[in-house]
Amino acid sequence: MNKHEGAVSQLVDLLGRLPGIGRKSAERLAFHLLRVPEDEALALSDAIRRIRSDVRYCSMCFNLCEQELCSICRDDSRDQSRLCIVEQPRDLMSLEQSKAYNGLYHVLLGRIAPLDGIGPDQLTIDALVDRVREGNFSEVIMATNPTVEGDGTALYISNQLSEYPVQMTRLARGITAGSVLEYANREMIADALSGRQKL
Amino acid sequence: MNKHEGAVSQLVDLLGRLPGIGRKSAERLAFHLLRVPEDEALALSDAIRRIRSDVRYCSMCFNLCEQELCSICRDDSRDQSRLCIVEQPRDLMSLEQSKAYNGLYHVLLGRIAPLDGIGPDQLTIDALVDRVREGNFSEVIMATNPTVEGDGTALYISNQLSEYPVQMTRLARGITAGSVLEYANREMIADALSGRQKL
Repeated sequence: MNKHEGAVSQLVDLLGRLPGIGRKSAERLAFHLLRVPEDEALALSDAIRRIRSDVRYCSMCFNLCEQELCSICRDDSRDQSRLCIVEQPRDLMSLEQSKAYNGLYHVLLGRIAPLDGIGPDQLTIDALVDRVREGNFSEVIMATNPTVEGDGTALYISNQLSEYPVQMTRLARGITAGSVLEYANREMIADALSGRQKL
Repeated sequence: MNKHEGAVSQLVDLLGRLPGIGRKSAERLAFHLLRVPEDEALALSDAIRRIRSDVRYCSMCFNLCEQELCSICRDDSRDQSRLCIVEQPRDLMSLEQSKAYNGLYHVLLGRIAPLDGIGPDQLTIDALVDRVREGNFSEVIMATNPTVEGDGTALYISNQLSEYPVQMTRLARGITAGSVLEYANREMIADALSGRQKL
Protein backbone atom coordinates (compact mmCIF):
# COMPACT_ATOMS: atom_id res chain seq x y z
CA MET A 1 0.00 0.00 0.00
CA ASN A 2 1.06 3.55 -0.41
CA LYS A 3 0.44 6.72 1.54
CA HIS A 4 -1.36 8.58 -1.24
CA GLU A 5 -5.02 9.30 -1.21
CA GLY A 6 -7.59 7.65 -3.48
CA ALA A 7 -6.95 8.73 -7.05
CA VAL A 8 -3.20 9.19 -6.73
CA SER A 9 -2.81 5.92 -4.86
CA GLN A 10 -4.79 4.06 -7.50
CA LEU A 11 -2.82 5.51 -10.38
CA VAL A 12 0.49 4.72 -8.67
CA ASP A 13 -0.66 1.14 -8.12
CA LEU A 14 -1.75 0.70 -11.73
CA LEU A 15 1.38 2.30 -13.18
CA GLY A 16 3.50 0.13 -10.90
CA ARG A 17 2.03 -2.99 -12.50
CA LEU A 18 3.39 -2.05 -15.92
CA PRO A 19 6.50 -3.95 -16.99
CA GLY A 20 9.75 -2.25 -16.08
CA ILE A 21 8.07 0.37 -13.88
CA GLY A 22 8.83 0.07 -10.20
CA ARG A 23 7.20 1.83 -7.30
CA LYS A 24 9.44 4.94 -7.44
CA SER A 25 8.97 5.33 -11.19
CA ALA A 26 5.22 4.90 -10.80
CA GLU A 27 5.15 7.72 -8.27
CA ARG A 28 7.24 9.93 -10.49
CA LEU A 29 4.96 9.24 -13.45
CA ALA A 30 1.82 9.92 -11.41
CA PHE A 31 3.20 13.27 -10.22
CA HIS A 32 4.25 14.06 -13.77
CA LEU A 33 0.70 13.41 -14.99
CA LEU A 34 -0.61 15.69 -12.24
CA ARG A 35 1.69 18.47 -13.36
CA VAL A 36 1.45 18.45 -17.15
CA PRO A 37 -1.27 20.43 -18.96
CA GLU A 38 -4.58 18.68 -18.49
CA ASP A 39 -5.10 17.90 -22.17
CA GLU A 40 -1.79 16.07 -22.32
CA ALA A 41 -2.83 13.78 -19.47
CA LEU A 42 -6.26 13.24 -20.98
CA ALA A 43 -4.71 12.49 -24.39
CA LEU A 44 -2.79 9.62 -22.77
CA SER A 45 -5.95 8.37 -21.09
CA ASP A 46 -7.79 8.44 -24.41
CA ALA A 47 -4.93 6.78 -26.29
CA ILE A 48 -5.01 3.83 -23.88
CA ARG A 49 -8.76 3.55 -24.37
CA ARG A 50 -8.45 3.78 -28.15
CA ILE A 51 -5.74 1.15 -28.41
CA ARG A 52 -8.20 -1.30 -26.89
CA SER A 53 -11.22 -0.26 -28.91
CA ASP A 54 -9.68 0.41 -32.32
CA VAL A 55 -6.77 -1.97 -32.71
CA ARG A 56 -7.26 -5.48 -34.13
CA TYR A 57 -5.21 -8.04 -35.98
CA CYS A 58 -4.82 -7.86 -39.75
CA SER A 59 -6.94 -10.67 -41.20
CA MET A 60 -4.13 -11.54 -43.60
CA CYS A 61 -0.86 -11.33 -41.66
CA PHE A 62 -1.98 -10.79 -38.02
CA ASN A 63 -0.02 -7.58 -37.68
CA LEU A 64 -1.77 -4.95 -35.58
CA CYS A 65 -4.05 -2.68 -37.57
CA GLU A 66 -7.24 -0.68 -37.42
CA GLN A 67 -8.82 -1.95 -40.62
CA GLU A 68 -9.44 -5.33 -42.20
CA LEU A 69 -5.90 -5.35 -43.61
CA CYS A 70 -2.79 -3.67 -42.22
CA SER A 71 -0.90 -0.98 -44.11
CA ILE A 72 1.78 -3.47 -45.21
CA CYS A 73 -0.71 -5.96 -46.68
CA ARG A 74 -2.52 -3.08 -48.41
CA ASP A 75 0.71 -1.75 -49.95
CA ASP A 76 0.91 -2.97 -53.56
CA SER A 77 4.40 -1.56 -53.98
CA ARG A 78 5.88 -4.15 -51.63
CA ASP A 79 7.51 -7.32 -52.91
CA GLN A 80 4.63 -9.84 -53.00
CA SER A 81 6.93 -12.80 -53.57
CA ARG A 82 8.65 -12.76 -50.18
CA LEU A 83 7.10 -13.67 -46.84
CA CYS A 84 8.85 -13.06 -43.56
CA ILE A 85 7.63 -14.98 -40.49
CA VAL A 86 7.95 -13.28 -37.10
CA GLU A 87 6.74 -14.11 -33.62
CA GLN A 88 5.19 -10.79 -32.61
CA PRO A 89 4.07 -7.48 -34.12
CA ARG A 90 6.98 -5.78 -32.37
CA ASP A 91 9.42 -8.06 -34.19
CA LEU A 92 7.83 -6.99 -37.46
CA MET A 93 8.37 -3.43 -36.40
CA SER A 94 12.06 -3.93 -35.71
CA LEU A 95 12.47 -5.38 -39.18
CA GLU A 96 10.54 -2.48 -40.70
CA GLN A 97 12.69 0.04 -38.88
CA SER A 98 15.80 -1.51 -40.43
CA LYS A 99 14.37 -0.65 -43.88
CA ALA A 100 16.23 -3.70 -45.17
CA TYR A 101 13.14 -5.69 -46.16
CA ASN A 102 10.34 -4.82 -48.52
CA GLY A 103 8.29 -8.01 -48.67
CA LEU A 104 5.24 -9.20 -46.75
CA TYR A 105 5.00 -10.60 -43.23
CA HIS A 106 3.21 -13.25 -41.25
CA VAL A 107 2.92 -12.78 -37.49
CA LEU A 108 2.65 -16.01 -35.48
CA LEU A 109 1.45 -14.20 -32.33
CA GLY A 110 3.80 -16.30 -30.22
CA ARG A 111 6.14 -19.25 -30.44
CA ILE A 112 5.73 -22.94 -29.73
CA ALA A 113 6.56 -23.27 -26.03
CA PRO A 114 5.55 -26.64 -24.58
CA LEU A 115 6.67 -25.60 -21.09
CA ASP A 116 4.19 -22.70 -21.20
CA GLY A 117 1.51 -24.91 -22.71
CA ILE A 118 1.64 -23.13 -26.07
CA GLY A 119 1.29 -25.53 -28.99
CA PRO A 120 1.15 -24.91 -32.75
CA ASP A 121 -2.67 -24.66 -32.59
CA GLN A 122 -2.51 -21.47 -30.56
CA LEU A 123 -0.42 -19.72 -33.19
CA THR A 124 -1.43 -18.54 -36.67
CA ILE A 125 0.34 -21.43 -38.40
CA ASP A 126 -2.80 -22.76 -40.14
CA ALA A 127 -3.40 -19.38 -41.74
CA LEU A 128 0.28 -19.27 -42.72
CA VAL A 129 0.09 -22.64 -44.45
CA ASP A 130 -3.03 -21.47 -46.31
CA ARG A 131 -1.24 -18.32 -47.43
CA VAL A 132 1.77 -20.25 -48.69
CA ARG A 133 -0.42 -22.82 -50.43
CA GLU A 134 -2.52 -20.21 -52.20
CA GLY A 135 0.10 -17.50 -52.65
CA ASN A 136 2.89 -17.06 -55.14
CA PHE A 137 5.73 -16.72 -52.68
CA SER A 138 9.16 -17.62 -53.94
CA GLU A 139 10.84 -17.24 -50.55
CA VAL A 140 9.78 -17.67 -46.94
CA ILE A 141 12.17 -16.06 -44.45
CA MET A 142 12.14 -17.37 -40.88
CA ALA A 143 12.67 -14.47 -38.51
CA THR A 144 11.67 -16.11 -35.24
CA ASN A 145 13.86 -15.18 -32.30
CA PRO A 146 17.26 -16.91 -32.03
CA THR A 147 16.19 -18.84 -28.94
CA VAL A 148 15.54 -22.53 -28.36
CA GLU A 149 11.80 -21.96 -28.68
CA GLY A 150 12.14 -19.66 -31.68
CA ASP A 151 14.37 -22.17 -33.46
CA GLY A 152 11.96 -24.97 -32.61
CA THR A 153 9.06 -22.98 -33.99
CA ALA A 154 10.98 -22.27 -37.20
CA LEU A 155 11.78 -25.98 -37.56
CA TYR A 156 8.15 -26.97 -37.04
CA ILE A 157 6.99 -24.44 -39.62
CA SER A 158 9.61 -25.44 -42.17
CA ASN A 159 8.31 -29.02 -41.88
CA GLN A 160 4.75 -27.82 -42.41
CA LEU A 161 5.78 -25.90 -45.50
CA SER A 162 8.17 -28.46 -46.95
CA GLU A 163 5.68 -29.70 -49.54
CA TYR A 164 5.32 -26.28 -51.18
CA PRO A 165 7.77 -25.00 -53.79
CA VAL A 166 9.16 -22.09 -51.83
CA GLN A 167 12.72 -21.41 -50.81
CA MET A 168 13.07 -21.39 -47.00
CA THR A 169 15.70 -19.16 -45.45
CA ARG A 170 16.39 -17.84 -41.99
CA LEU A 171 18.07 -14.71 -40.68
CA ALA A 172 21.86 -14.83 -40.68
CA ARG A 173 23.57 -15.31 -37.34
CA GLY A 174 27.02 -14.27 -36.32
CA ILE A 175 28.85 -11.48 -34.60
CA THR A 176 26.88 -8.28 -34.26
CA ALA A 177 27.88 -5.03 -35.91
CA GLY A 178 29.77 -2.84 -33.46
CA SER A 179 30.61 -5.67 -31.07
CA VAL A 180 34.06 -6.92 -30.11
CA LEU A 181 35.09 -10.56 -30.44
CA GLU A 182 36.58 -10.53 -26.97
CA TYR A 183 33.13 -10.25 -25.42
CA ALA A 184 31.18 -12.39 -27.89
CA ASN A 185 29.76 -15.54 -26.33
CA ARG A 186 30.43 -19.06 -27.52
CA GLU A 187 27.18 -19.46 -29.47
CA MET A 188 27.77 -16.21 -31.29
CA ILE A 189 31.30 -17.24 -32.32
CA ALA A 190 30.10 -20.70 -33.36
CA ASP A 191 27.32 -19.16 -35.48
CA ALA A 192 29.78 -16.71 -37.03
CA LEU A 193 32.24 -19.45 -37.91
CA SER A 194 29.75 -21.95 -39.30
CA GLY A 195 28.08 -19.24 -41.37
CA ARG A 196 31.30 -17.59 -42.59
CA GLN A 197 31.11 -15.85 -45.92
CA LYS A 198 33.47 -15.39 -48.88
CA LEU A 199 35.28 -12.07 -48.88
CA MET B 1 7.64 9.02 -36.47
CA ASN B 2 7.09 5.36 -35.93
CA LYS B 3 5.88 2.56 -38.12
CA HIS B 4 2.76 1.77 -36.11
CA GLU B 5 -0.69 2.58 -37.30
CA GLY B 6 -2.92 5.25 -35.77
CA ALA B 7 -3.88 4.26 -32.25
CA VAL B 8 -0.72 2.30 -31.46
CA SER B 9 1.48 5.01 -32.91
CA GLN B 10 -0.27 7.67 -30.89
CA LEU B 11 0.00 5.74 -27.65
CA VAL B 12 3.69 5.03 -28.24
CA ASP B 13 4.30 8.73 -28.87
CA LEU B 14 2.45 9.81 -25.73
CA LEU B 15 4.09 7.18 -23.52
CA GLY B 16 7.49 8.16 -24.93
CA ARG B 17 6.98 11.71 -23.63
CA LEU B 18 6.76 10.53 -20.03
CA PRO B 19 9.90 11.09 -17.96
CA GLY B 20 12.32 8.17 -17.99
CA ILE B 21 10.46 6.32 -20.74
CA GLY B 22 12.33 6.02 -24.00
CA ARG B 23 11.07 4.89 -27.35
CA LYS B 24 11.72 1.17 -26.77
CA SER B 25 10.05 1.24 -23.36
CA ALA B 26 7.09 3.11 -24.81
CA GLU B 27 6.65 0.39 -27.43
CA ARG B 28 6.92 -2.32 -24.82
CA LEU B 29 4.34 -0.59 -22.64
CA ALA B 30 1.95 -0.10 -25.56
CA PHE B 31 2.16 -3.78 -26.50
CA HIS B 32 1.69 -4.69 -22.87
CA LEU B 33 -1.48 -2.60 -22.72
CA LEU B 34 -2.71 -4.34 -25.86
CA ARG B 35 -2.17 -7.74 -24.30
CA VAL B 36 -3.49 -7.37 -20.76
CA PRO B 37 -7.18 -7.96 -19.97
CA GLU B 38 -9.22 -5.08 -21.30
CA ASP B 39 -10.47 -3.94 -17.89
CA GLU B 40 -6.89 -3.57 -16.65
CA ALA B 41 -6.03 -1.23 -19.53
CA LEU B 42 -9.25 0.72 -19.07
CA ALA B 43 -8.61 1.01 -15.33
CA LEU B 44 -5.33 2.76 -16.10
CA SER B 45 -7.06 5.06 -18.58
CA ASP B 46 -9.68 5.94 -15.96
CA ALA B 47 -7.10 6.45 -13.21
CA ILE B 48 -5.28 9.02 -15.33
CA ARG B 49 -8.56 10.80 -15.98
CA ARG B 50 -9.51 10.71 -12.30
CA ILE B 51 -6.18 12.05 -11.08
CA ARG B 52 -6.87 15.18 -13.10
CA SER B 53 -10.51 15.58 -12.16
CA ASP B 54 -10.46 14.58 -8.48
CA VAL B 55 -7.10 15.63 -7.12
CA ARG B 56 -6.50 19.11 -5.71
CA TYR B 57 -4.25 20.77 -3.18
CA CYS B 58 -5.10 20.72 0.51
CA SER B 59 -6.21 24.25 1.43
CA MET B 60 -4.12 24.08 4.59
CA CYS B 61 -0.80 22.41 3.71
CA PHE B 62 -0.91 22.11 -0.12
CA ASN B 63 -0.44 18.37 -0.04
CA LEU B 64 -2.42 16.52 -2.72
CA CYS B 65 -5.89 15.51 -1.63
CA GLU B 66 -9.41 14.96 -2.85
CA GLN B 67 -11.21 17.00 -0.22
CA GLU B 68 -10.84 20.46 1.30
CA LEU B 69 -8.20 19.14 3.72
CA CYS B 70 -5.77 16.25 3.22
CA SER B 71 -5.81 13.18 5.45
CA ILE B 72 -2.82 14.43 7.44
CA CYS B 73 -4.37 17.81 8.23
CA ARG B 74 -7.61 16.05 9.18
CA ASP B 75 -5.84 13.65 11.54
CA ASP B 76 -6.21 14.97 15.10
CA SER B 77 -3.90 12.29 16.48
CA ARG B 78 -0.89 13.88 14.84
CA ASP B 79 1.44 16.21 16.71
CA GLN B 80 -0.06 19.65 16.06
CA SER B 81 2.99 21.47 17.47
CA ARG B 82 5.47 20.49 14.75
CA LEU B 83 5.49 21.71 11.17
CA CYS B 84 7.73 20.19 8.52
CA ILE B 85 8.36 22.20 5.35
CA VAL B 86 8.93 20.27 2.11
CA GLU B 87 9.26 21.27 -1.51
CA GLN B 88 6.87 18.81 -3.14
CA PRO B 89 4.10 16.37 -2.20
CA ARG B 90 6.44 13.51 -3.11
CA ASP B 91 8.94 14.72 -0.50
CA LEU B 92 6.16 14.64 2.08
CA MET B 93 5.48 11.09 1.03
CA SER B 94 9.07 10.01 1.50
CA LEU B 95 9.00 11.41 5.01
CA GLU B 96 5.69 9.66 5.73
CA GLN B 97 7.06 6.37 4.49
CA SER B 98 9.92 6.62 6.98
CA LYS B 99 7.31 6.67 9.78
CA ALA B 100 9.79 8.79 11.75
CA TYR B 101 7.63 11.93 11.88
CA ASN B 102 4.16 12.46 13.25
CA GLY B 103 3.65 16.22 12.94
CA LEU B 104 2.07 18.38 10.26
CA TYR B 105 3.48 19.50 6.90
CA HIS B 106 3.60 22.49 4.65
CA VAL B 107 4.27 21.89 0.95
CA LEU B 108 5.96 24.80 -0.86
CA LEU B 109 5.10 23.42 -4.32
CA GLY B 110 8.61 24.22 -5.52
CA ARG B 111 11.78 25.95 -4.44
CA ILE B 112 13.15 29.43 -5.02
CA ALA B 113 15.07 29.14 -8.28
CA PRO B 114 16.03 32.51 -9.77
CA LEU B 115 17.59 30.86 -12.83
CA ASP B 116 14.24 29.24 -13.64
CA GLY B 117 12.39 32.46 -12.86
CA ILE B 118 10.77 31.03 -9.74
CA GLY B 119 10.59 33.56 -6.91
CA PRO B 120 9.10 33.33 -3.41
CA ASP B 121 5.76 34.64 -4.71
CA GLN B 122 5.19 31.53 -6.78
CA LEU B 123 5.49 29.28 -3.76
CA THR B 124 3.11 28.88 -0.81
CA ILE B 125 5.31 30.91 1.53
CA ASP B 126 2.64 33.52 2.33
CA ALA B 127 0.26 30.81 3.46
CA LEU B 128 3.10 29.29 5.51
CA VAL B 129 3.81 32.56 7.29
CA ASP B 130 0.08 32.91 8.06
CA ARG B 131 0.01 29.39 9.49
CA VAL B 132 3.01 30.01 11.70
CA ARG B 133 1.66 33.37 12.86
CA GLU B 134 -1.75 31.96 13.75
CA GLY B 135 -0.72 28.49 14.83
CA ASN B 136 0.79 27.14 18.00
CA PHE B 137 3.82 25.50 16.49
CA SER B 138 6.79 25.00 18.77
CA GLU B 139 9.09 23.72 16.02
CA VAL B 140 9.42 24.26 12.29
CA ILE B 141 11.55 21.63 10.54
CA MET B 142 13.11 22.58 7.21
CA ALA B 143 13.09 19.54 4.94
CA THR B 144 13.85 21.20 1.61
CA ASN B 145 16.22 19.25 -0.58
CA PRO B 146 19.96 19.40 0.27
CA THR B 147 20.73 21.38 -2.89
CA VAL B 148 21.86 24.95 -3.43
CA GLU B 149 18.30 25.98 -4.27
CA GLY B 150 16.78 23.97 -1.44
CA ASP B 151 19.19 25.49 1.06
CA GLY B 152 18.52 28.97 -0.31
CA THR B 153 14.79 28.44 0.02
CA ALA B 154 15.21 27.24 3.61
CA LEU B 155 17.31 30.33 4.41
CA TYR B 156 14.73 32.66 2.88
CA ILE B 157 11.93 31.03 4.84
CA SER B 158 13.86 31.06 8.12
CA ASN B 159 14.30 34.83 7.66
CA GLN B 160 10.57 35.24 7.03
CA LEU B 161 9.75 33.28 10.16
CA SER B 162 12.44 34.77 12.39
CA GLU B 163 10.03 37.10 14.20
CA TYR B 164 7.83 34.24 15.45
CA PRO B 165 8.64 32.28 18.62
CA VAL B 166 9.23 28.89 16.99
CA GLN B 167 12.34 26.76 17.06
CA MET B 168 13.75 26.33 13.55
CA THR B 169 15.56 23.10 12.70
CA ARG B 170 16.64 21.36 9.57
CA LEU B 171 17.18 17.72 8.64
CA ALA B 172 20.51 16.28 9.77
CA ARG B 173 23.17 15.77 7.13
CA GLY B 174 25.99 13.33 7.14
CA ILE B 175 26.94 9.91 5.91
CA THR B 176 24.02 7.76 4.82
CA ALA B 177 23.07 4.53 6.52
CA GLY B 178 24.52 1.56 4.66
CA SER B 179 27.12 3.59 2.78
CA VAL B 180 30.90 3.25 2.96
CA LEU B 181 33.17 6.17 3.79
CA GLU B 182 35.47 5.27 0.92
CA TYR B 183 32.83 6.31 -1.61
CA ALA B 184 31.31 9.25 0.27
CA ASN B 185 31.85 12.57 -1.48
CA ARG B 186 33.52 15.57 0.04
CA GLU B 187 30.31 17.44 0.94
CA MET B 188 28.93 14.38 2.68
CA ILE B 189 32.08 13.96 4.77
CA ALA B 190 32.17 17.66 5.61
CA ASP B 191 28.52 17.57 6.71
CA ALA B 192 29.16 14.46 8.78
CA LEU B 193 32.15 16.02 10.52
CA SER B 194 30.62 19.41 11.24
CA GLY B 195 27.44 17.78 12.56
CA ARG B 196 29.16 15.07 14.58
CA GLN B 197 27.30 13.81 17.60
CA LYS B 198 28.26 12.63 21.09
CA LEU B 199 28.47 8.87 21.48
